[in-house]
Amino acid sequence: MQCPNRIEVTMATIREIADKLGVSISTVSKGLNGASDISASTRQMVLDAALEMGYAGKRGKHFFGKRVCIVVMQLPYSNINEFAYELTSGFRLAATQKGYQVSIITLEQLEATNSNYDKAMEALGYSGAFFVGLTENDAYLKQFQNTRIPTVLFEGYVRNPMVSMVSSDLSEGIYQCVKHLYEYGHRTIAFINGPENCRSSNMRLQGYLHALRDFHLPERSELMTWCPYYPPEKAKNHVLEFLKAGVTGIVCANDYIAAAVISEARQYGKQIPQDLSVTGFDDIPLAQYMNPNITTINENRLDLGQTALKTLDALLHGDNLAICITHPRFINRGSTAAVPR
Amino acid sequence: MQCPNRIEVTMATIREIADKLGVSISTVSKGLNGASDISASTRQMVLDAALEMGYAGKRGKHFFGKRVCIVVMQLPYSNINEFAYELTSGFRLAATQKGYQVSIITLEQLEATNSNYDKAMEALGYSGAFFVGLTENDAYLKQFQNTRIPTVLFEGYVRNPMVSMVSSDLSEGIYQCVKHLYEYGHRTIAFINGPENCRSSNMRLQGYLHALRDFHLPERSELMTWCPYYPPEKAKNHVLEFLKAGVTGIVCANDYIAAAVISEARQYGKQIPQDLSVTGFDDIPLAQYMNPNITTINENRLDLGQTALKTLDALLHGDNLAICITHPRFINRGSTAAVPR
Repeated sequence: MQCPNRIEVTMATIREIADKLGVSISTVSKGLNGASDISASTRQMVLDAALEMGYAGKRGKHFFGKRVCIVVMQLPYSNINEFAYELTSGFRLAATQKGYQVSIITLEQLEATNSNYDKAMEALGYSGAFFVGLTENDAYLKQFQNTRIPTVLFEGYVRNPMVSMVSSDLSEGIYQCVKHLYEYGHRTIAFINGPENCRSSNMRLQGYLHALRDFHLPERSELMTWCPYYPPEKAKNHVLEFLKAGVTGIVCANDYIAAAVISEARQYGKQIPQDLSVTGFDDIPLAQYMNPNITTINENRLDLGQTALKTLDALLHGDNLAICITHPRFINRGSTAAVPR
Repeated sequence: MQCPNRIEVTMATIREIADKLGVSISTVSKGLNGASDISASTRQMVLDAALEMGYAGKRGKHFFGKRVCIVVMQLPYSNINEFAYELTSGFRLAATQKGYQVSIITLEQLEATNSNYDKAMEALGYSGAFFVGLTENDAYLKQFQNTRIPTVLFEGYVRNPMVSMVSSDLSEGIYQCVKHLYEYGHRTIAFINGPENCRSSNMRLQGYLHALRDFHLPERSELMTWCPYYPPEKAKNHVLEFLKAGVTGIVCANDYIAAAVISEARQYGKQIPQDLSVTGFDDIPLAQYMNPNITTINENRLDLGQTALKTLDALLHGDNLAICITHPRFINRGSTAAVPR
């Protein structure tokens, strides 16, 4: 017996996508896996075609059942250079494989339907949702404390069995940055973390402290500080004291902070990376175009989007899953170099 | 075409398990879900029968393909009162659903086959493994740093895309203990954490600090200390100073520490829970039989075992998954009460 709201769709193979785009099968495969050795525009071309043509991978189903949604907070997602593009694309690709129909809506659309989250979801006919872009201070987070709708939050944590968090391993990312500087000979490495008392900053701090321990570097409180993710102006205040303390490498909680640090260090006549190495985090589009381009951590957002769908699928099947964390990817660029002699 | 090492097995339904055991379908269902409102011996009877009869749930397959193993470190697992029983049972139940064959072996058997982990796994014909009982200091952990075998570690973390950690949310567990004491009116709550500088202690500390912030309690360094998980003797040294500081509730990193704290507090004439409330962690078999029985956190080990198999299945399919964390369960017993007036 067939579920009444199932829709039959035509599924595409990798070969069909390659033929349509006039590229090789290997290029399509790389695009679908988020490989970094093809250009961003090629990746977007492949992902857009795969989504449009209904690519469902080897484990794909041919019928679409439950409807789920992605709720984005005023974030653009139509272009691969925009933060939410790969998150939403990864989610939609995995949804095709598991037989879900996906809509992308804004928080405003949800709230306009009903101010109560559960009622809005019921009215719109969605079985579950993936939220992208909510921050820990958003008032809407309170809606999730008692929800009965399976819900996945990108980097958001709520103590409710119906809600799971998906995040990349921020601790591992910071660890990789410290390790990279250590391998370049740096021994006095400062850390500008994100805002104090938030979950993501705690995760990053663990990575920094863990790396110090592994590489037998002393833990010096004057080399650790906090800064809002944006604007990163506050980070500048620490650069001079770090330089006076003999710091040769600064690990930053995101690319904006790294950019502010580089700009400030130049005020004191420092060349980057010859005199000072700086690492970022997030691999924002600008990171690769700056001078120098920024050594950073890429969160593998395509993987994160796919993991979000699989986590939502697990919640919809009654699994106990509080948090799912993926591996990020270290990107070695021009803002780091061997320690000055 | 059929994979050569697939074996056809007879699958059992919940009704068949109920008929065989002479219990209700609802009891079987509770046993399979690890419900706490049936006795431990009934849960074990149901789980043993389900495993023996090949229960595969609604999403079960009828053929067994890949072979995977659970590697246990000299831990007993034949009885529900033993630490590894529910971990291995949950893993095996989920394996049946996903069509895996599972063997349980010891680390000694693995090492006897080949001192190299990957070679041993190949020789034994296992595609992946779930390790239970390795600690952060075990030399064998180094084997995982470059392994190409999909491997899931219970509470063990290694920076390798082929290795995932499965754990319950230790942070949430400690948070729930502080919240419980707060709701009972306690305002001066000490915390005896596990060993310093280990991942699990860091997670627990985050839960304690997060709860203090949420309930607007001051963060006092003299109320936080560290202690080995076993033996818990060191914990005793702190009890008197906590009592002098006006502490009315002590949150402990495990049940052994809680037991040591209760024993020590009695030396000073304190009645538990009338004069002092104490919480444990792990819900070891003894916790329910002590006098008073211990308010604690149950890690939902059946869920953890199932999550471990699903995580291994994800790794075997090439997913990017570093960490999977499940919700623990708060167990309110007799070692906590309203704050003394």
